[in-house]
Amino acid sequence: MNPKLYWEDFPAGCARRIGPRRITAKEIVTFARQVDPQPFHVDAESAASFQFGGLIASGWHICALAMRMMCDDHILESAGLGSPGADSIRWKQPLRAEDTITVEATVLETRRSRSRPGVGILRWHWDVKNQHGRSIAELETTGMIRCRSTPENVP
Amino acid sequence: MNPKLYWEDFPAGCARRIGPRRITAKEIVTFARQVDPQPFHVDAESAASFQFGGLIASGWHICALAMRMMCDDHILESAGLGSPGADSIRWKQPLRAEDTITVEATVLETRRSRSRPGVGILRWHWDVKNQHGRSIAELETTGMIRCRSTPENVP
Repeated sequence: MNPKLYWEDFPAGCARRIGPRRITAKEIVTFARQVDPQPFHVDAESAASFQFGGLIASGWHICALAMRMMCDDHILESAGLGSPGADSIRWKQPLRAEDTITVEATVLETRRSRSRPGVGILRWHWDVKNQHGRSIAELETTGMIRCRSTPENVP
Repeated sequence: MNPKLYWEDFPAGCARRIGPRRITAKEIVTFARQVDPQPFHVDAESAASFQFGGLIASGWHICALAMRMMCDDHILESAGLGSPGADSIRWKQPLRAEDTITVEATVLETRRSRSRPGVGILRWHWDVKNQHGRSIAELETTGMIRCRSTPENVP
């Protein structure tokens, strides 16, 4: 598949609102059994005795859900080249079964790679919100993406 | 299950070496299909045309693998209370099928919560290494954990 979106299509301030996406108890437990089987992520009964008062998703599951939503929104049709990392992850509020999330993703900063011509770097802010509009997680991530133009042929 | 490990059991500098854990192509593709289906994470043939030269695990998969290794090593038998986030994730080198990883986890900083008596906060450095001893990912994460003693009854 030829990519439709390149670095030039994501200027600073560009914002995407992605979702909504409903989360089920089964998803929460299935992910956590694999990745993060702490009692408050895998067992509703045991979870009730913790400070959250019930089953909550692993923070890594929130990241995974947001990543998949970003993929389906635009990454899979872009000339993406992977990521060197994330500068910050904040898990702020619990994600619970039957919650519905949206991701508000904004380009904080954009530049061309100094070492790799034709590669652009995007710094994103992701704000994951629940159905009450409350922010449950914030991330600052970095993505690499091919440029449509190389510095030599920029008009 | 009563926890065996509390905040006091993780002093600053305390280090754990966890693994090894071998990663298969099937695991890489299964996780990525769910979370991050970019071509270089789900399809070996298509992956060959990217800069990595073959199938590589999603960075989020590396985080998930390290989290599970931390769980099995000590989190599941500790009085863990979840996490407010991570300060940094660096995906430094590709994780490929048949690689074997270890996690070297070190407590960078430890303190009692100012707002919640009886809760301790641990700042960890995770270094995920491959079978060549090369660091493929580094994370700085924060964990909350119950204290065995409350400030009032510290000797």
